[in-house]
Amino acid sequence: MSSFRNKIQPTAAMLVIGDEILSGRTQDTNTQFIAKRLTEAGIHLSEVRVVLDVEKDIMLAINNLRLSYTYVFTSGGIGPTHDDITADAVAKAFKVGINVREDAKRILSTNYKDGEKSLNESRLRMARIPNGALLIDNPISKAPGFSLGNVYVMAGVPSIFKVMVESALQGLVGGPPLLSISVKVLRPESEIAKRLEDIAHNFSGGSIGSYPFNVDGVHGTNVVARHFDEKSLVEIEKKLKEIS
Amino acid sequence: MSSFRNKIQPTAAMLVIGDEILSGRTQDTNTQFIAKRLTEAGIHLSEVRVVLDVEKDIMLAINNLRLSYTYVFTSGGIGPTHDDITADAVAKAFKVGINVREDAKRILSTNYKDGEKSLNESRLRMARIPNGALLIDNPISKAPGFSLGNVYVMAGVPSIFKVMVESALQGLVGGPPLLSISVKVLRPESEIAKRLEDIAHNFSGGSIGSYPFNVDGVHGTNVVARHFDEKSLVEIEKKLKEIS
Repeated sequence: MSSFRNKIQPTAAMLVIGDEILSGRTQDTNTQFIAKRLTEAGIHLSEVRVVLDVEKDIMLAINNLRLSYTYVFTSGGIGPTHDDITADAVAKAFKVGINVREDAKRILSTNYKDGEKSLNESRLRMARIPNGALLIDNPISKAPGFSLGNVYVMAGVPSIFKVMVESALQGLVGGPPLLSISVKVLRPESEIAKRLEDIAHNFSGGSIGSYPFNVDGVHGTNVVARHFDEKSLVEIEKKLKEIS
Repeated sequence: MSSFRNKIQPTAAMLVIGDEILSGRTQDTNTQFIAKRLTEAGIHLSEVRVVLDVEKDIMLAINNLRLSYTYVFTSGGIGPTHDDITADAVAKAFKVGINVREDAKRILSTNYKDGEKSLNESRLRMARIPNGALLIDNPISKAPGFSLGNVYVMAGVPSIFKVMVESALQGLVGGPPLLSISVKVLRPESEIAKRLEDIAHNFSGGSIGSYPFNVDGVHGTNVVARHFDEKSLVEIEKKLKEIS
């Protein structure tokens, strides 16, 4: 059954925006976080892209992904500095205007002792929201994310990204969960590959993946099977355990 | 100066192939490894994509990226199982045939006590190489990667990916190195954003990125400046330290 682009669940793409990932300075961990949460929510993460802080690159990726997937989630580039250009790029991608919005400004001001007086030009950048967008709640540092159409724009700082994902997911409808089981086989992948293929052939609508490991010289394989149907998965698990 | 797609260095894209990354099961670390190595080698990593183990998705990404960047590096999907379809997808993307190749078979056999006799059908899959490709050395488990045109196809297992990257980089020519400095400023990003922008405006041909942090309640900013010219970078560093 190899892999599949499932047609039962809504699909999603993740777009990571930031030079710091592409230079190797920073390890991206937001992708794995949202991947797990989407899997739990019954949404099939089908593609990830990482692009530079370059407006044209962000625009192209947004427009390409939003037409290909049910949902698009972005991380990065919505802070107060001149290299935070995600909101503008999204506005351009959708061909809508962008302005400081009163509700965003009010929310943002609650993060500072002196309220709206503290909102200098840089901080006000974080209240610039494309026309027609809905705000995404940020309980940590207040500066909101936003969604426009099927695109959910969130911060890159992992702790803030996480709470924004939780805020965004509340409004989304997933499909049935894709169930999975994992079996550890203490034989190398190349010895069990044929058996795995045979098992895969007998079960359609799911996937079997195999991941070799080597611990203290022992070559083994972690086999992961996914299926929407619990009974099929129990059958697959039984067959996988017979290999061990 | 915000970010830039530099025209001084060769560019590169990384394509990660694997359901296990998109399901959240596995944290991808290959991207950060190659990002650092490419930065050192004077090659500008400009985009990353992660796709499912789906032949059409891999093909489309390969064809899109190889036309957009000087080099494309892939990780994953070249093992012995039915879900290892990267070599076939690359052959299709280039519209060339793919067969078990004698030199690859010979190299692969050195990994097993019984030599070529050990090469069952599954293991032989790892000697299937698209027509016209060059082999990439794999000192760890022998099964070679390959390059075809500007596309470098490597294993997903991190230890093997790393040695293959080193093998592949030996044949590549980079541009001048993009130098970088990092300054830690103990003030929140939103307080120093205007200053950063002013500094950025006075130096073209580089980039300034800022990354907020919060340690024990202190909001600070790591500022990273990149430039090809060492003198410019020294000037920028001086100005950044004045902010602190």
